[in-house]
Amino acid sequence: MEFHTAEEVSKMYRSSVSQTQVEAVEMEGAKDVTIQWLLKRSHGVPNFEMRRFTVKKDGHTPYHQHDFEHEIYVLSGHGMMKYGDEEQEIHPEDVIYIPANDWHQFRNAGDADFVFMCLVPKMD
Amino acid sequence: MEFHTAEEVSKMYRSSVSQTQVEAVEMEGAKDVTIQWLLKRSHGVPNFEMRRFTVKKDGHTPYHQHDFEHEIYVLSGHGMMKYGDEEQEIHPEDVIYIPANDWHQFRNAGDADFVFMCLVPKMD
Repeated sequence: MEFHTAEEVSKMYRSSVSQTQVEAVEMEGAKDVTIQWLLKRSHGVPNFEMRRFTVKKDGHTPYHQHDFEHEIYVLSGHGMMKYGDEEQEIHPEDVIYIPANDWHQFRNAGDADFVFMCLVPKMD
Repeated sequence: MEFHTAEEVSKMYRSSVSQTQVEAVEMEGAKDVTIQWLLKRSHGVPNFEMRRFTVKKDGHTPYHQHDFEHEIYVLSGHGMMKYGDEEQEIHPEDVIYIPANDWHQFRNAGDADFVFMCLVPKMD
């Protein structure tokens, strides 16, 4: 957990995808996925955080669940979402809300990178 | 304010840009702007809401401030952001955090639509 002064929290922040560090997702069950934390607590955001995921060909996120929700917006590529026992195709400009505690996974189902935004509440 | 049952809140929701109603922004100071509420309280989201704005050529959002923050991700087009006394160019894949209470405005600075995501905390 990072510590924020009132001064940090009150500042406008701007950046871009190209200026944001690309980090491998090392979580068990993840394959060929990177994450960029576009807006995170250290940028001063008070309530929710914005991340951008890139899933390479044949890659996937973990099939998992957790006690916070996802708000997802698909930017590019072709994916499959496993949600509980269902598999669903997903495409650019699709929007998905995954409630807390529900099992989910995202796979790249095409040749190009599968890229999506995934926002989460800021957790204390 | 809408009322949500526990059942509503616990459900996965999916949609897409093309399936989401396009509404004119009628707020004073707005010109040729539409909004799509991609994820909102009636979809069951518990903490924050996802909107997509389209600003037509020569259009702009109001120059205003309010007591909640914005988290912005630029999807397409070329814009100008007025933030306090500054004007800044913005481009696709730019990311901006506007803290609560700060004055801001977004203008289309090109010929094509200027399109961005703007997320806000869910307010009670």
